[in-house]
Amino acid sequence: MQPVLLAGRWQQGQAVGVFRATCPQTGEPLGPEYPVSSWEDCHQALEAAQEAFVQLRRTSREQIARFLFRYAERIEARSQQIAQTAHQETALPLKPRLLEVELPRTVNQIRQAAQAAQERSWCRATIDTKLNIRSYLAAVGPVVVMGPNNFPLAFGSASGGDFAAAVAAGCPVLAKAHTSHPTTTRLFAEEALQALQEVGLHPATVQLLYRVSHEDGKRLVADPRVGATAYTGSRRSGLELKAAADAAGRPIFLELSSINPVVLLPGALRQRADQIAQQFVGSCLLGCGQFCTNPGLVLVIDGPEAQQFIQTVVEQFRQTPPGTLLSEGVLENLHRNVQKLVQAGAEVLCGAERLPGPGFHFANTLLRVQAEQFLQAPQTFQTEAFGNSSLVVVCQDLEQLLRVIGTLEGNLTGSIYAHTQGEDESAYAEVAFALRPRVGRLLNDKMPTGVAVTAAMNHGGPFPATGHPHFTSVGIPAAMTRFGMLQCFDNVPQHRLPEELRDKNPTGRMWRLIDGRWTQEDVKPQPEAV
Amino acid sequence: MQPVLLAGRWQQGQAVGVFRATCPQTGEPLGPEYPVSSWEDCHQALEAAQEAFVQLRRTSREQIARFLFRYAERIEARSQQIAQTAHQETALPLKPRLLEVELPRTVNQIRQAAQAAQERSWCRATIDTKLNIRSYLAAVGPVVVMGPNNFPLAFGSASGGDFAAAVAAGCPVLAKAHTSHPTTTRLFAEEALQALQEVGLHPATVQLLYRVSHEDGKRLVADPRVGATAYTGSRRSGLELKAAADAAGRPIFLELSSINPVVLLPGALRQRADQIAQQFVGSCLLGCGQFCTNPGLVLVIDGPEAQQFIQTVVEQFRQTPPGTLLSEGVLENLHRNVQKLVQAGAEVLCGAERLPGPGFHFANTLLRVQAEQFLQAPQTFQTEAFGNSSLVVVCQDLEQLLRVIGTLEGNLTGSIYAHTQGEDESAYAEVAFALRPRVGRLLNDKMPTGVAVTAAMNHGGPFPATGHPHFTSVGIPAAMTRFGMLQCFDNVPQHRLPEELRDKNPTGRMWRLIDGRWTQEDVKPQPEAV
Repeated sequence: MQPVLLAGRWQQGQAVGVFRATCPQTGEPLGPEYPVSSWEDCHQALEAAQEAFVQLRRTSREQIARFLFRYAERIEARSQQIAQTAHQETALPLKPRLLEVELPRTVNQIRQAAQAAQERSWCRATIDTKLNIRSYLAAVGPVVVMGPNNFPLAFGSASGGDFAAAVAAGCPVLAKAHTSHPTTTRLFAEEALQALQEVGLHPATVQLLYRVSHEDGKRLVADPRVGATAYTGSRRSGLELKAAADAAGRPIFLELSSINPVVLLPGALRQRADQIAQQFVGSCLLGCGQFCTNPGLVLVIDGPEAQQFIQTVVEQFRQTPPGTLLSEGVLENLHRNVQKLVQAGAEVLCGAERLPGPGFHFANTLLRVQAEQFLQAPQTFQTEAFGNSSLVVVCQDLEQLLRVIGTLEGNLTGSIYAHTQGEDESAYAEVAFALRPRVGRLLNDKMPTGVAVTAAMNHGGPFPATGHPHFTSVGIPAAMTRFGMLQCFDNVPQHRLPEELRDKNPTGRMWRLIDGRWTQEDVKPQPEAV
Repeated sequence: MQPVLLAGRWQQGQAVGVFRATCPQTGEPLGPEYPVSSWEDCHQALEAAQEAFVQLRRTSREQIARFLFRYAERIEARSQQIAQTAHQETALPLKPRLLEVELPRTVNQIRQAAQAAQERSWCRATIDTKLNIRSYLAAVGPVVVMGPNNFPLAFGSASGGDFAAAVAAGCPVLAKAHTSHPTTTRLFAEEALQALQEVGLHPATVQLLYRVSHEDGKRLVADPRVGATAYTGSRRSGLELKAAADAAGRPIFLELSSINPVVLLPGALRQRADQIAQQFVGSCLLGCGQFCTNPGLVLVIDGPEAQQFIQTVVEQFRQTPPGTLLSEGVLENLHRNVQKLVQAGAEVLCGAERLPGPGFHFANTLLRVQAEQFLQAPQTFQTEAFGNSSLVVVCQDLEQLLRVIGTLEGNLTGSIYAHTQGEDESAYAEVAFALRPRVGRLLNDKMPTGVAVTAAMNHGGPFPATGHPHFTSVGIPAAMTRFGMLQCFDNVPQHRLPEELRDKNPTGRMWRLIDGRWTQEDVKPQPEAV
């Protein structure tokens, strides 16, 4: 059985069970046996994480950045094996997806995080020179990261955005691998430990468990030694973790579910129905539909162009060989939720069935429902069917479309396609006004599946898309601020302040809000505070 | 029975009960009868708040600022009556406290919020010009404000920091008065409604209920029409509201309880024990100890100077006539919690008893416990005895002091007094390192009761001091960000963007993070996004 990474050592730990990954292509077990860890292992990990946190608080930000840079290099040096392993464990295409898109994105965001740790602007240092009151975001403590199944690299528990943001903020990470890709996660953790040792950072800055019981998971996120938890995954598990963490007053950041409504206004369809259908098919079937931002709900106003759009999508869905789903669980949930939608009254335009043969395959699925029917059970029709499936809601007019939007839960994204010469402008205004507060990111004439790693990104949104509408899990430095607690220093002399809050700008490049003005300058020498 | 302020009108509403305020000086009922509102009233308020929110989203920030400025003027014009009423309802001193300190602070923070609404920097507009991805914090929706008993003006539900921050962020406020000062709150709401009408803002931007049942309170904070809740008050009620809001995924910001440890290092006591005792007595008895930041726990290392400090405090506590407590509930809780501490083994140095006569009075109380005993039941000894009481923990040495600090729960503040010529420096470093992550604000050589309204303030801290260590409830603009949801615009053309995210800086003064650089400039004209 594979060892876990605890307190800087690969060690057997105390397992309470064992599991193996499954090859999604064949349904057969894959790779070595991995432990289901006991609470004893969690406890040991938390103790070591606390110790690491104490050291990280005394460690220069430069050294933390060096670790991240070195880790990125080591990942690149092993990228073939990592991507190949992830391909085996997830059946996501090796090229371009894993090797040419997700892996570069992974190292890119680690490097962005490293740069942010160096520059330090992320901590929003705020200085009132007259009162000598100064505050900034400081590392909140050890962070438990529980990554999802669908991005083994860029959202991986020991490699992804949450991991990079937490470490760059100065927090040790206790990674809980997703059980569908344990070996991929192990390869990352191996490189992380090496990089930690190379730069001399506390070796428990990164720890890895592969699986814990449901009960231990809840106990973990509620433990007082945990500074915060970052979770991406199913709504059901996420809500259980949220309840446990909330009750204990421990911060938890969750990305739970999203159906990412796409509104196609009449002018846009008149102008370019086929082109939009093409974009939609590409986005909806990307990664076999297993994207948090998959366009799972399409809203159209009835008419010949809307029918043309639907017909084109059906044709292309039929012609495109369905991809392989990540796991039997994904396949079963997809099947169950598509059935739920159909039983509620959605019409099957194509797909809606499991495909025979080894491995996990589901026919590309397009469903249709009339808005009138949608409005009778809006909750049910917003059931997320995670995978290569989408539901088209056909509205009779703009007024009905707006009523449908008025029933939507919180989502990560919402897209609106409109006529490029302005013919939809007044409808756009009404639709955008209604949709805007319900989504984290509003896109125009663009499908939602691309999530750029930029400071201006919001990969977040109102509940139940996430646990809190204030935060994003993608985008440096904003994603880092989740792992900061606000610390204020009142009447504290210079030599006792953290570098970020001293008069002298610690990097010469750090942005600070000094007396209401964002600046990279030093604080001008002050007369002693009265 | 007094009407409630619903949907822009003072109306009877549907009461399920009735209550009156109590004069803390006499224990007699005071002022008119006020309704306990039914859920029907809450529902009506939420419908109206939603409507107001729709209008506020379309309203210029300038107009929102005008309302706040006008409201501040109207408060000032009625300041005598407001302060006098608050004095009657709370027994807090009219002068200087209510009229000369709290009221000016109240209008000052309303004006700061108005300026922040005008300038707009609070929303942290972030622009990636290359990708044309832009994000900012937008108003989260109607905000329920439940203010505390102890600051009828500056934390009042319809006048205080939460109120001002929410409105300035663009959120309508549904105020739930504290039942100990309904008339004070009514006077504010009367002025608010007048000011709304004068500037033409939606009249349901400010609504007022006086009291709701426990069950309706929980239903309120969990209602999907609520954007967020801000609560300041007792831990028990706050945790019940938190559980209800959390389960529904509605943001709730809570300030719950805090005992605000004060560490007196040996050199400081050697140097100026009497002076520190003086400061401590002033801070601890201010407002009869009814401050969120009251120094309720003092940590000293045993020695003659520590004994001298204690003796001086006892003398002054005995000599100072105790103030009047806010309510019978405060008196009973104080009595019960002091008894709890005493039963756990704290020694009574003075006070610890209710005083006879009409009204709510408790003897100024100083308790003492040896650190060894404290460490046997650290949870119990951190019981908050809200009022004119404090507990001194006597440690044998620095190591024991650090162990005591290691058991502390999250607090709003922590203070360290040290020798001014550096004799405590190494002890300071250890104490500060241990205390820092447990408190929101760390003070040096200063008692915690002053909370300046500055951008650099943190009136927040780790659970259970508040519900989330990332946020502050005092300090503009940071306090406003609690009421913002992150909204991203991806590939949205200029004319459809909110003003804050267009190329042109909407005020010429607004700070925005453009391509990694904080600036007040416009975005330079870009080639069309690809």
